[in-house]
Amino acid sequence: MKKYFLFAVLTLFVAHAMYAQQATWIWYPGDYEIWLSNKMQNRRTEKGAFFPPFWRMDAHYVLMDFHKEFNLTEPEEMHIYAEGNYNVKLDSKMLPGTPAIVTIPAGKHKINIKVHNQDKVPAIYVKGRTIVSDASWLVTYEDKEWIDETGKVSDQSGTTWLTAGSWNFNDPQTLPSEFRLSLASAEPVAVERKGNSLLVDFGKETFGYLSLRGVRGKGPITIYYGESKEEALSPEGCETLDKLEVEGNGKGAIMTNLSKAFRYVNIEMGPGVGVDSVSMFYEYLPVKQRGSFKCSDEQVNRIYEVSKYTLQLNTREFFIDGIKRDRWIWSGDAYQSYLMNYYLFFDEASVRRTLLSLRGKDPVSSHINTIMDYTFYWFLGIYDYYTYTGDKAFLTQLYPRMQSLMEYCLGRRNKDGLMEGLSGDWVFIDWAEGLSKKGEVSFEQMLLCRSLETMALCAGIANDETGAAKYQQLGADLRKKLFSIYWNDAKQALVHSRVNGIPADHVTRYANMFGIFFNYFTPQQAEGVKTHVLLNKEVPKITTPYMRFYELEALCAMGEQSYVLKEMKDYWGGMLSLGATSFWEEYNPAKKGVEHYAMYGRPFGKSLCHAWGASPLYLLGRYYLGVQPTSPGYKTYSITPVLGGLQWMEGDVPVPGGAVKMYCSATKLQVKGAAGVGTLRFNSASRPTCKTAAIQSLGSNRYELTVQPGVEYEVAYKASK
Amino acid sequence: MKKYFLFAVLTLFVAHAMYAQQATWIWYPGDYEIWLSNKMQNRRTEKGAFFPPFWRMDAHYVLMDFHKEFNLTEPEEMHIYAEGNYNVKLDSKMLPGTPAIVTIPAGKHKINIKVHNQDKVPAIYVKGRTIVSDASWLVTYEDKEWIDETGKVSDQSGTTWLTAGSWNFNDPQTLPSEFRLSLASAEPVAVERKGNSLLVDFGKETFGYLSLRGVRGKGPITIYYGESKEEALSPEGCETLDKLEVEGNGKGAIMTNLSKAFRYVNIEMGPGVGVDSVSMFYEYLPVKQRGSFKCSDEQVNRIYEVSKYTLQLNTREFFIDGIKRDRWIWSGDAYQSYLMNYYLFFDEASVRRTLLSLRGKDPVSSHINTIMDYTFYWFLGIYDYYTYTGDKAFLTQLYPRMQSLMEYCLGRRNKDGLMEGLSGDWVFIDWAEGLSKKGEVSFEQMLLCRSLETMALCAGIANDETGAAKYQQLGADLRKKLFSIYWNDAKQALVHSRVNGIPADHVTRYANMFGIFFNYFTPQQAEGVKTHVLLNKEVPKITTPYMRFYELEALCAMGEQSYVLKEMKDYWGGMLSLGATSFWEEYNPAKKGVEHYAMYGRPFGKSLCHAWGASPLYLLGRYYLGVQPTSPGYKTYSITPVLGGLQWMEGDVPVPGGAVKMYCSATKLQVKGAAGVGTLRFNSASRPTCKTAAIQSLGSNRYELTVQPGVEYEVAYKASK
Repeated sequence: MKKYFLFAVLTLFVAHAMYAQQATWIWYPGDYEIWLSNKMQNRRTEKGAFFPPFWRMDAHYVLMDFHKEFNLTEPEEMHIYAEGNYNVKLDSKMLPGTPAIVTIPAGKHKINIKVHNQDKVPAIYVKGRTIVSDASWLVTYEDKEWIDETGKVSDQSGTTWLTAGSWNFNDPQTLPSEFRLSLASAEPVAVERKGNSLLVDFGKETFGYLSLRGVRGKGPITIYYGESKEEALSPEGCETLDKLEVEGNGKGAIMTNLSKAFRYVNIEMGPGVGVDSVSMFYEYLPVKQRGSFKCSDEQVNRIYEVSKYTLQLNTREFFIDGIKRDRWIWSGDAYQSYLMNYYLFFDEASVRRTLLSLRGKDPVSSHINTIMDYTFYWFLGIYDYYTYTGDKAFLTQLYPRMQSLMEYCLGRRNKDGLMEGLSGDWVFIDWAEGLSKKGEVSFEQMLLCRSLETMALCAGIANDETGAAKYQQLGADLRKKLFSIYWNDAKQALVHSRVNGIPADHVTRYANMFGIFFNYFTPQQAEGVKTHVLLNKEVPKITTPYMRFYELEALCAMGEQSYVLKEMKDYWGGMLSLGATSFWEEYNPAKKGVEHYAMYGRPFGKSLCHAWGASPLYLLGRYYLGVQPTSPGYKTYSITPVLGGLQWMEGDVPVPGGAVKMYCSATKLQVKGAAGVGTLRFNSASRPTCKTAAIQSLGSNRYELTVQPGVEYEVAYKASK
Repeated sequence: MKKYFLFAVLTLFVAHAMYAQQATWIWYPGDYEIWLSNKMQNRRTEKGAFFPPFWRMDAHYVLMDFHKEFNLTEPEEMHIYAEGNYNVKLDSKMLPGTPAIVTIPAGKHKINIKVHNQDKVPAIYVKGRTIVSDASWLVTYEDKEWIDETGKVSDQSGTTWLTAGSWNFNDPQTLPSEFRLSLASAEPVAVERKGNSLLVDFGKETFGYLSLRGVRGKGPITIYYGESKEEALSPEGCETLDKLEVEGNGKGAIMTNLSKAFRYVNIEMGPGVGVDSVSMFYEYLPVKQRGSFKCSDEQVNRIYEVSKYTLQLNTREFFIDGIKRDRWIWSGDAYQSYLMNYYLFFDEASVRRTLLSLRGKDPVSSHINTIMDYTFYWFLGIYDYYTYTGDKAFLTQLYPRMQSLMEYCLGRRNKDGLMEGLSGDWVFIDWAEGLSKKGEVSFEQMLLCRSLETMALCAGIANDETGAAKYQQLGADLRKKLFSIYWNDAKQALVHSRVNGIPADHVTRYANMFGIFFNYFTPQQAEGVKTHVLLNKEVPKITTPYMRFYELEALCAMGEQSYVLKEMKDYWGGMLSLGATSFWEEYNPAKKGVEHYAMYGRPFGKSLCHAWGASPLYLLGRYYLGVQPTSPGYKTYSITPVLGGLQWMEGDVPVPGGAVKMYCSATKLQVKGAAGVGTLRFNSASRPTCKTAAIQSLGSNRYELTVQPGVEYEVAYKASK
């Protein structure tokens, strides 16, 4: 008994000490993310011109109060670091000057640190023996600390406090405002000199700063960037360029000052200007690749590897759309990155940063990115974030901002309670010729419906019972309406829209495929949709990897992994066979040669490295390896491997605290989960065996096995449909 | 006929040319004001510690689109200056690079300039032959300029444009972000050396930077600032101080880096540190003193002069409360400065800047300065601004922000439609011991009522007819309620409050004095209030110049100028006889010696230079010289001189485009108005005469004369009651 007790005490002590030592820079949640995303999103250029977003960019609160109460057993010295001008209050009494070290006496004490910073985000880093700055501190932009004419300080009633935001700045010298992505030098694979120009090939799509060495002479250097050779060689057509001026101070080195996307660069030097050699600094977010996939099909392996690289390139300060052109945070694009991320990096912080920056601040004056569907994807992203991470604290922190955005949406419904594009709303859906955005589009109602369900979920977590009931009711009502208005029994599908009260005659894939993985259909409806929409060539085809993501997901959810594998090999394999080293914004196999590079009416307008091109990461992890959470944060999860025509496959799916490791062939299954309780489900034509666990038979060749954390299971079986 | 026509054409041409030449820096209205006020308000220190406000400080929009359409008869070069990174679009097409000069072709063209600036306010200055940046440009933080997949640009539907904000930065090299108040050097009147310390007297209250010359040695210098000698000599008690470190690099000069308020400074030097001499740089807003007042009573003249200086010292980047301590923009304090300003500087820009910075941004999360009454004063300030200036453009620009603030107020009414302090609301009213803030205070309802009337007025100007009707009705309803709940016939007064549905038994001056000059009372009620409240010593006395302002105004409005003159001489004269060189935050004649300097539980907590101390400026201009607008912007105005016991008085009251000049004795009246049509009203025991105009008799010794602009009128009369 005594031994156990001691162990428990030691554990507590260690836990506390570890916690206590983990000081980190903290700020108002969202403020640093907004500030950093402003910086990032205003780095877009087009032909040398500054090209900023066309939606509202918010700013941080310039004055912030940080606060926590501590109960100390003995006095301790608290060291304070701040980004900004600050003061310190101990038990509501302001200390003189700007103290860097404050001794806090033993006992219960309230510490307030108030910081002003116009240019950067007010942030603090505090460290004592037990006192540290972390997410348990409270922050407010309005501390309302009144004094009366006698000098009496009022309590801070009516002040709204939130828990502090943070990332991973755990060193007092690592100022949040000085954050930079990491750099690694890289050499070209080929350099071609022609007169006074250099054509440099880095062998694959990349992103970073160009470095010119041995620069001499005096005069201009123009750098034309190209994701393709043709783009780099087109001074008129290329999307990005740099104009430098060599000053004529002897030999020197030049590094470009704005990182850019390229595979090729075409360097044109003025007469008398020369350059010895060219290399680059690859710029990236250091995030661990925790997921993996390998299988018997080398083309699929290559698709997986290029998807990984595509997502890595687009995972930066935030999840961006593509690295060449916009480099902006688009909610619809980011939503897909979140899902891929859960199967590759499982980097929760990147999802949180992106959600916070997209949301911006109140008041809501337009949809996110001005796009109606993109507002809804923001809600959906929160739903998934909770499902994969189980992080209630973030949801609670975010909930007030979810409420005000949802109120904005609800305020824009028409008299029938449906969303249609009002003045200033961009109804996007997809890049697709002739796609109608008029009237009440079924797809938008479906996304609102899921958003309302997300609100109900989060209201519950944030202890807003009234809100939970309200949103649940609104969601249920809308779901009913969705089917009564749009479901067409003859077509076995949801029709595209309703215009002037009349449901449209035509069907598109959008609402129908979402209905599948939202689980909105009855089994009969789902089968109807699969046959009459998803596998029906009469229904307009999808040409963007963006919507291919959902189309293939819906098919996988309906058990069509074999069909999807073929599609994947055709579509992504098609890009690979055209020499793609990262996946594209759009791919139409019917196009030829440089036609592939054109978009938006510009010869090289298309992005050849677009995050939404990387969806095989998600599909292979979730629907082939078949790992997905069944309760928030993988407390429980299911493993339902489907080979879909592959001979074998293996891989890791990251989960909080580790990974689920998988191997699957037609005769062998190997599984090990790091945390949570998994349920392995599979079909077997013969009675399967496992040495370390009992296998339950579910009948009809279905079997089930419970996967405990840390235990390896090997199952001998015989794969069957 | 021909001649007249030519004249008209020339006038138009000249007007256009003048207008065209007046290029100025422009920005999103309110953004520069918010940015500048953040800077100013975060300069408060207390004993060397940074002491920021406790309310939310907003930030500018970091990304701004400026836009105007021009119709050019011939091509012209447009020169562009910007604070921030920018791009230029001509007819929605982005030009390459960052052009400083753009040639606009002849014909109709749309120019957009988009600017990003995180640290400073995005601003532009544009100048061509006819194209100039001015308040006619439109601005938005959200231009929604979408393109589709074919490159087609959508129109900017749903975008909210406002007219641009500006001040007086008419030089492209005068960057708004580099604005500094003006400086003038000044020498002390006395310097006393004692050991290693220097006591320096600048002869009167002042504000600025201290300049130390011939600084030598190595070690610390501490500067203790004092509005009084006692404060400067109290290292423990003084409110502000500076700690310098002399580096020991031979003889040099030091200028303090934060301007402060003082009359005395006590400079204590460390051993081995020496200073040859001390002077200062007086820091001020260069604004013209257009109003004046002089009379037969030298004490009143001195009161007027010290009031002028007091207001000048507190008229800075914005109208602040006092120069020593807060140096913040308090809405209730500023409201009085607006009114004084109309009689001294008539500087419309200072009122606009202050109103904009106080309002901040949406969403409204608390009352202005967290104080309920201060929110209402903000509305009242707009009402007066319109009355004095007639500036509809500013009101229209401000109207959306007025609406959202009023919605906040209306949303905080209780079930009876009345305002009472909710959590986080500071019900201030006045610094007065034992003043109850509980329940529904009559004063707050009265201010809300006037605020609703302001909303109705501005809704009309902004062409919001629905709003105008709504606010008018709300105002009328509340005014009825005010009297039905609070008017006590027996007491001939509005009672102080209602608590738990029961009207209080006691009367305070607040609602009653405002009711007088808001014209809310019947003549009988007004007489009742005058006798039973204003002139009743049983009703708790007012001790702040802040509420004295309204008390004396109410008495003047009731024709009690003689009484008020005596009060003025007693109260302000009392401060003068104690050696005041500027007027104080609070004055209680019963106190003695250093007691006068104490407040907020601190020995020198009181401000000895407080804007609200300067109210004689307003009282003498409006109620003695008797000049006030009767239609917006002095289109028409009245002149009703009242000597109130003086033998003679003379002065200027500024009006748009000049001043109304006045002389008045018991036998002679002289008036000349620069603009607008005035009506001079006076009593005369004899039949008055005027050589240049006809005088109308109104009966009962009352006479009236119409004052045309630019014409001087001299009236011989015989003053009578």
